[in-house]
Amino acid sequence: MRVFLDCLPCMVQQILDASRMATGDTALQQDIMEEALDIVSRYRDYRNAPEAVRDVHRIVKRKTGQNDPYRAVKDGAIASALSLYPFLRRYLDQKQDTLFWALKAAATGNIIDAAICKDITIDEGIEKELEKPFAICDIDAFRDKLDAAKTLLIIADNAGETVFDRLLMERLEGVSITYAVRDEPIINDATIEDARASGIEGCVISTGCGAPGILFEECSDAFLEIYREADLVISKGQANFETLSGADREIFFLLKAKCPFIGSHLGVDVNQYVFLRHDQH
Amino acid sequence: MRVFLDCLPCMVQQILDASRMATGDTALQQDIMEEALDIVSRYRDYRNAPEAVRDVHRIVKRKTGQNDPYRAVKDGAIASALSLYPFLRRYLDQKQDTLFWALKAAATGNIIDAAICKDITIDEGIEKELEKPFAICDIDAFRDKLDAAKTLLIIADNAGETVFDRLLMERLEGVSITYAVRDEPIINDATIEDARASGIEGCVISTGCGAPGILFEECSDAFLEIYREADLVISKGQANFETLSGADREIFFLLKAKCPFIGSHLGVDVNQYVFLRHDQH
Repeated sequence: MRVFLDCLPCMVQQILDASRMATGDTALQQDIMEEALDIVSRYRDYRNAPEAVRDVHRIVKRKTGQNDPYRAVKDGAIASALSLYPFLRRYLDQKQDTLFWALKAAATGNIIDAAICKDITIDEGIEKELEKPFAICDIDAFRDKLDAAKTLLIIADNAGETVFDRLLMERLEGVSITYAVRDEPIINDATIEDARASGIEGCVISTGCGAPGILFEECSDAFLEIYREADLVISKGQANFETLSGADREIFFLLKAKCPFIGSHLGVDVNQYVFLRHDQH
Repeated sequence: MRVFLDCLPCMVQQILDASRMATGDTALQQDIMEEALDIVSRYRDYRNAPEAVRDVHRIVKRKTGQNDPYRAVKDGAIASALSLYPFLRRYLDQKQDTLFWALKAAATGNIIDAAICKDITIDEGIEKELEKPFAICDIDAFRDKLDAAKTLLIIADNAGETVFDRLLMERLEGVSITYAVRDEPIINDATIEDARASGIEGCVISTGCGAPGILFEECSDAFLEIYREADLVISKGQANFETLSGADREIFFLLKAKCPFIGSHLGVDVNQYVFLRHDQH
């Protein structure tokens, strides 16, 4: 999915936020913005927004020496989500259709996205968010496949959301799950460290790719083998959708539409939840 | 006043909006964004945001052949403001301190700013806006000067706001008023045509400068002479403030703070109204 024109102001705002998280030195922030804007001006050289976003965030890392500017944001998101974990467990325990609600919880976890919603208070109104229906819900197709599936790959999104994914993973019985995260810190996306801090045990791997999404040529052979061989793949969040929407295998996209352009691509409104089966073409 | 880092995402969003108003051709919009981002990346070459904004909007004009992309926006703003004019006259007629409320009305007219607030409905809640106090109000100093003043220069801001300025001008008796507008269409700023369409009679001149603000070296000699010789100068809106905040003469700045950075420079919150005497240094 190409870089939308509307991604450009959003990218410029995001890199400004990141530069301020990484350093208090205004002159350095100015250097970062100058170099980042030059990259953003060449946005047509990029296949998708996550690839361009990766390159602009590398400027922040290089110029400030801060490899993880969103560290505090991610720690806060994980801590908030962990404090919700007991409530979320009880919430799922009282539901009959556990799979549906666990998927819904994992999608709801996608609200923890410091990249787009900076001042979100996740414990306020979480139950209201959980009760919102999916605008697209291909759960029947998923159920059919799950019965026969031996392996499931979840491609993770943000730190904090990871705790919600953990709840889903605890409800998925009889299938071997691999949880794949970013290879290096990028925005507030989850790394192996973040997944572990969220209490995810079992098989957590890096995709090998440091972009906020899946750029196949940068992924490790180990990840690619799991991706190709998995009976089921769940892809979380917008950035994974942006990079995987043309994938040549079946993927179940689980996300909340956070911007009008992803929404219109999916045929849903902003803030609606989606569990979409992407067919293998 | 230099280009703030926070101006950058705002400028990128604005040029995207302008390019879409000027053309429906996506390829052309892409060309505009590429060139505009290159200019924005060199923001440190500019003394202030209005100067950079002028240059990026020139790209839109050159590439689309549309000299006035905000024409429809400006026409709508003028029509809306004109429909409010009878109400505003009655509102001022019932006030004792006519000068104060006419200044307040002229400041309130500054809410018609398509550059920042795109979807504003100006006739909703106009009375509520009018009743909001000034956070800074140097009206006593203004009154003192006005008694002795023979000439007053008003440096205009947006189209539509012009109708509110007209109400102020009708209340300023015993002083010869010059109303100065932009030399060419830029964003939704007022030109001579817009001032006339707003019902402003009397002396309307161009500053000679096509930027959304006052860049002295681009202003006409005729404007500069009036600016230097005027007994009183009222400068409307943020962009004029950004370019005149270091001026070497007394200016009364009349505006609504619309962004945190102008607000913090003035020591007020966003959305607060200001009537500030800038002393001659």
